[in-house]
Amino acid sequence: MKVRVSPRGASRLLARHPWVYRSDVLEGPDQAGLYPVYGPKGLLAWAAWNPASEIAVRAFRYRPTDDAEQSLLDNLQRALAQRKASLEAEPQGAFRLAHAEGDSLPGLVLDYYAGHVVVQSGSAALEPLLPRFVEVLIEQIPVQSVLARNDQRSRTLEGLELEVKPLFGKVPEWVWVREGDIEYRADLLSGQKTGAFIDQRDNRLRLRAYRGERALDVFSYHGSFALHLAQGFKSVTAVDSSAEALARARANAQHNRLEIATVEANAFEFLRQEEKSGHKYDLVVLDPPAFAKSKRDLERAYAAYKEVNLRAIKLLREGGILATASCSHHLTEPLFYEMLADAAADAHRSLRVIERRGQGWDHPVLLGVPETHYLKFALLEVGE
Amino acid sequence: MKVRVSPRGASRLLARHPWVYRSDVLEGPDQAGLYPVYGPKGLLAWAAWNPASEIAVRAFRYRPTDDAEQSLLDNLQRALAQRKASLEAEPQGAFRLAHAEGDSLPGLVLDYYAGHVVVQSGSAALEPLLPRFVEVLIEQIPVQSVLARNDQRSRTLEGLELEVKPLFGKVPEWVWVREGDIEYRADLLSGQKTGAFIDQRDNRLRLRAYRGERALDVFSYHGSFALHLAQGFKSVTAVDSSAEALARARANAQHNRLEIATVEANAFEFLRQEEKSGHKYDLVVLDPPAFAKSKRDLERAYAAYKEVNLRAIKLLREGGILATASCSHHLTEPLFYEMLADAAADAHRSLRVIERRGQGWDHPVLLGVPETHYLKFALLEVGE
Repeated sequence: MKVRVSPRGASRLLARHPWVYRSDVLEGPDQAGLYPVYGPKGLLAWAAWNPASEIAVRAFRYRPTDDAEQSLLDNLQRALAQRKASLEAEPQGAFRLAHAEGDSLPGLVLDYYAGHVVVQSGSAALEPLLPRFVEVLIEQIPVQSVLARNDQRSRTLEGLELEVKPLFGKVPEWVWVREGDIEYRADLLSGQKTGAFIDQRDNRLRLRAYRGERALDVFSYHGSFALHLAQGFKSVTAVDSSAEALARARANAQHNRLEIATVEANAFEFLRQEEKSGHKYDLVVLDPPAFAKSKRDLERAYAAYKEVNLRAIKLLREGGILATASCSHHLTEPLFYEMLADAAADAHRSLRVIERRGQGWDHPVLLGVPETHYLKFALLEVGE
Repeated sequence: MKVRVSPRGASRLLARHPWVYRSDVLEGPDQAGLYPVYGPKGLLAWAAWNPASEIAVRAFRYRPTDDAEQSLLDNLQRALAQRKASLEAEPQGAFRLAHAEGDSLPGLVLDYYAGHVVVQSGSAALEPLLPRFVEVLIEQIPVQSVLARNDQRSRTLEGLELEVKPLFGKVPEWVWVREGDIEYRADLLSGQKTGAFIDQRDNRLRLRAYRGERALDVFSYHGSFALHLAQGFKSVTAVDSSAEALARARANAQHNRLEIATVEANAFEFLRQEEKSGHKYDLVVLDPPAFAKSKRDLERAYAAYKEVNLRAIKLLREGGILATASCSHHLTEPLFYEMLADAAADAHRSLRVIERRGQGWDHPVLLGVPETHYLKFALLEVGE
């Protein structure tokens, strides 16, 4: 049993793009599974195959193999080995152990939170292998529990059920995660993503270098940027539209004996109001949700990103720092910087790029596969 | 006395690009100096003016001022304030204190090496202010000596003499600089740039996370990448065409009680030879000099970058790490990644982007001013 793809599908795999869409598939088995993929000139790759999915072919290996399962387990082993040193240095920290396509593990995400691992699986072909993935995991890494957090809507595209269930050990509802000088609570069962936004970890730590009077954390969620800022700034305000997230931000602050103010508000309205009041800040963090969920949204999303950034620039004193992110992969990196230059021009201010950052090193991107590069993070100083 | 620029020159300054070329200047004073710049609609900026230079206008302030000198000193003060916390945390380290246009200080570079500062000045208009810059510097930062290292060829474009002279204190020939767990010797009087390549500091520190058997540091200069690698790898080879640089690399290694092997060779030939010998590495650093010195060189330079990267990719085992840089601003970031994708395709290997980095945060880039963004640094894992 094998999958045959069109010349166009073949050229994608030859260029090491792991996805082939259903429209480029000539024939394949009726059921999801791990199969070799052939082009006009022979074997191209081994892939997770799902005839029910738009992305029918998701390659995880380009050389021949006798044991496709083992080859996936090898990919996991390699991913774990890469994180091991950092994890041993900070066992109470949080790290992404497996980043799906970025680690040649189609749809498979493993996040580590202070000894507890949360799994998300988004491929029908890999689903039966979950118990073996867990075996490899607990063999390689000191792990107290493993939770399958398979409640992401994208699973329905693969014909998979939504479920949250423990796979190993006793899964706590939440854990304290250490991040530099602070600790925050990650809610494994109910938090955003797998419990927190690990992809911004190194960006948050980066802001520890700054000191000043007033800092603002917009779209703060449970306040993890705000907590780092509270160590260097006299007053820190966290803004979010969720009262529950802000309650957790306050609890996190108390746990760290830090002070932050919280404001439950729509970010756009809050920024407009602050501008009217003439308040000025030394540092503003903008970490909005993905405004562009699809390519069709892009124009509207660009305008929304530009508006929050424009308003934040206006709130910053000369020399103030804008720490601004976009997690939408539809807003590409060049477009992100174009949007920022646009916003600065409209605000009649210059922007100095202190650092162009992105998702953490444990969220690897495949070169030539733009879908794997989603997080942009710029550190900018507002000038005259 | 003032400078008048054409509408095209005015639109550049309005977009906060600090440079106006001589061809866009309508009139200006005969002598270099600090002057207000006017467009068709009035005052645009204050700038370092040099009628003898191709880049005749270099803006450092966009709002009106009564005291242009003071406004430059303010810019220096702000730049120093931004570095202060890092410098206090690591007084034996090396940091760029002022990054010319990136800090609104036309042509002025100040580098800090463990208490000693090296100045490079590349603007005839700012030259007379050097003593005042030094005053501000020693007032703000604990500094034992200041050296003017004005031997860069670009000074001749400004009509300035080449000279190396002490400006304050007793200037040592060299100092030990701390960088993470290692120390390296910076030769203030004769080293590359102002003594070392500070712009790669954080990239070198980043490689400390890696461990393995065999690592290679190509274009190693005095071995500062190699020293960091020698802590995590069993064998490290530094390759450079300069016997003198390699002698210093060995002295640095000895000082740190670390072992590195050195090979004096042309990098291209060395990589070709290693491929023939079938040697494999776990990590390769490529930190070549700027192959593209001008836009005209770009095609040839692209080919040269591609060749070294292609050869390095072939030397890496599956899962090996390529840490590769380009310091030529003519090779833009998108072009740099295109070149890498090209090289990988020719080598029939996939590349996983672990991190896209650049020049350190103390080398700020102006948004919309591509000339200020020069260093690209990619951390890639070689796949099948």
